[in-house]
Amino acid sequence: MTDWAERFSPYGKRAKASEIRELLKLLDQPDIISFAGGIPDPKLFPRQLMADVHAEIFGDKATSNMALQYSVSEGYGPLRDLLVAEMKSLGITCTRDNIVITNGSQQGLDLLGRLFIGPGDKVLVARPTYLGLLQAFTASGPVYDDIAKLTGPEPIAAKLAYAMPDFQNPSGETMTLPEREALLDGARRSDLVLLEDTAYNKLSFDGPLLPSLMELDIAREGGIENSRVVYCGTFSKSVVPGLRVGWIVAASPIIQKLVLMKQAADLHTSTLAQVALAKVIERLPADHAETLCATYRPRRDAMVAALDEFMPEGVTFTRPGGGMFIWVTLPEGFDGATLLARAIEQERVAFVPGSAFYAGPPAANTLRLSFSATCPDKIREGIRRLGSLIAREHNSMTQARSA
Amino acid sequence: MTDWAERFSPYGKRAKASEIRELLKLLDQPDIISFAGGIPDPKLFPRQLMADVHAEIFGDKATSNMALQYSVSEGYGPLRDLLVAEMKSLGITCTRDNIVITNGSQQGLDLLGRLFIGPGDKVLVARPTYLGLLQAFTASGPVYDDIAKLTGPEPIAAKLAYAMPDFQNPSGETMTLPEREALLDGARRSDLVLLEDTAYNKLSFDGPLLPSLMELDIAREGGIENSRVVYCGTFSKSVVPGLRVGWIVAASPIIQKLVLMKQAADLHTSTLAQVALAKVIERLPADHAETLCATYRPRRDAMVAALDEFMPEGVTFTRPGGGMFIWVTLPEGFDGATLLARAIEQERVAFVPGSAFYAGPPAANTLRLSFSATCPDKIREGIRRLGSLIAREHNSMTQARSA
Repeated sequence: MTDWAERFSPYGKRAKASEIRELLKLLDQPDIISFAGGIPDPKLFPRQLMADVHAEIFGDKATSNMALQYSVSEGYGPLRDLLVAEMKSLGITCTRDNIVITNGSQQGLDLLGRLFIGPGDKVLVARPTYLGLLQAFTASGPVYDDIAKLTGPEPIAAKLAYAMPDFQNPSGETMTLPEREALLDGARRSDLVLLEDTAYNKLSFDGPLLPSLMELDIAREGGIENSRVVYCGTFSKSVVPGLRVGWIVAASPIIQKLVLMKQAADLHTSTLAQVALAKVIERLPADHAETLCATYRPRRDAMVAALDEFMPEGVTFTRPGGGMFIWVTLPEGFDGATLLARAIEQERVAFVPGSAFYAGPPAANTLRLSFSATCPDKIREGIRRLGSLIAREHNSMTQARSA
Repeated sequence: MTDWAERFSPYGKRAKASEIRELLKLLDQPDIISFAGGIPDPKLFPRQLMADVHAEIFGDKATSNMALQYSVSEGYGPLRDLLVAEMKSLGITCTRDNIVITNGSQQGLDLLGRLFIGPGDKVLVARPTYLGLLQAFTASGPVYDDIAKLTGPEPIAAKLAYAMPDFQNPSGETMTLPEREALLDGARRSDLVLLEDTAYNKLSFDGPLLPSLMELDIAREGGIENSRVVYCGTFSKSVVPGLRVGWIVAASPIIQKLVLMKQAADLHTSTLAQVALAKVIERLPADHAETLCATYRPRRDAMVAALDEFMPEGVTFTRPGGGMFIWVTLPEGFDGATLLARAIEQERVAFVPGSAFYAGPPAANTLRLSFSATCPDKIREGIRRLGSLIAREHNSMTQARSA
């Protein structure tokens, strides 16, 4: 029996490979300066706190038995209570019943794609957008369109729009308050579900966050039960990614359905991971987010300064207020994938070609650079090498054109 | 915005609630003798070993950083290597590339349902069958039929058949070797995928396991790459369920596709859970499975003995060689759900009504009893009470009929 591909369902056939997987493998080569993966710096992981809470859990028989046993699909109650408090601090009033725990926000996206999207349904995303959203949704067979159309005067016949308003992956851009209001106006006009991904919102380097789409929508609609916003959060960037714990906040009928789907998908997220994270979060110092920013902010600064210094004319880039990414646009004619192959071969520098982040026709002359896992000196050196390669490539393109 | 149900996809609309969820909540009431959930006895959790390996992981900076970081979707390499050895001990020769780590076997079922089943595809299951399979598959829109038809002379136009050959949940029954061979003959005749669920195979009380469907199929086909069997395993019953770690073994083209789907579903299973489990498994004593059986075997014996002693005439039940469940068939006219309500109210005893385990028309006069989480004395007392209730109910049914 070898004709496996013929036996796959339409859903299975639509599931496709991603460039990021192959790129993650490049990180294993120690002589490469990698701006590819959007991974947290492990030096920021609360190792001692993790050690303490696990020792505490296993030191108490009842707690240990509970943490190693099956648990409910909606998630560990005390963790959901902590998230109710966290959401309140973000201006969002909700209860336990508005929260389901997921395996990172990626599982949130997967469950929401399955819940809302069938073949041919229109989904609005930014250009560029988060690759993980495309991976999670594409097997459901959506038709993607540009979320920019939502703010036009005409309603759009779409089921759902997806946005990452703060420090977007991959662009690093943050929506202004008027842009957020316009997006909510558009979502109401087109009567669609608005999915808000807040993965990077603890990494705000230059001041407080703007209000989330959910906070703004609740202010309009009078409460979470009337809101069309579905909020995805994660501990991956603010605590640790390896435990795979995230959460969804939404009106309770959505959560009830998601809990059923979560039960069918994997019963529940690791009980131990949830119990440990609940204890860790309670004990994180009040300035934990500032500690994270104190590491990432100088890296952002170093990358912006190096791009200013080393990129040849015609190259533009974003100046993010937080998160992990800078988006680079090269002159027309450049191809990110070709450049990556040469960057690895000639300069031992890695990044993600921008075309991976487009649902529709890509802008091939774009790159995503992550500054999160590299120290400032190495960032400067990597950008210097990359700038030098781009300048060489640009020169030979210009010469070829004038020849 | 309150018309949520209208906005759900066909897939989302098909996702349905399960009786087991509500039943698990009954377990929280300490005065109930519960034969409902199929949960391991937490006294068998390797708590000290868990404490040791976590202390070891967090005591070493490099290991800790790795265990708390993102990792590859196929799963932690050393854990997959241990599973290659485990599969070899079960007579199945495979490599790392034939294995993907999942969040318990439930996620294996969910991914496989999505990969193979589209709306209208026929899936063959036993009567009764595992409830979690129905939950995982039903949203994909299958048409269920009886797996018994597969062993008839005519090919069946089905995509997939699902079987749990050892100590089936819910019936407790084990397929004989001729039954396994006949199932493989039928799967070949109908040219379908055969999904083998081995959740309870470490809990064999009365002797060694029979060969798995995968082992038998590999013997026929000459190697795993030619096998039509997809094997789902889990650590939930043999080590701990709360970490949610299981695995799928199959021909490599299936695994490659499942890895893509796993990446889209939640990136990967908790790195920490995988690293910890790999260390735990390496250090479990050689007689670990016998230790499990030494607890569960007397419970099976106590339940069988109590059923023999206390069940009135006309009640039949299975005598499982392992696992966690006994299947009870009551006289015609009984309804498991009605009996459950009375059992809780009048006798403080809980179980799962058998109708939950049917894809098609249920046999309502059936019950699933789990003996795994209750000590022999309590089992005897619970079965005594249940037998007394059934006798009373039976008498009043007989009197009503003769009146």
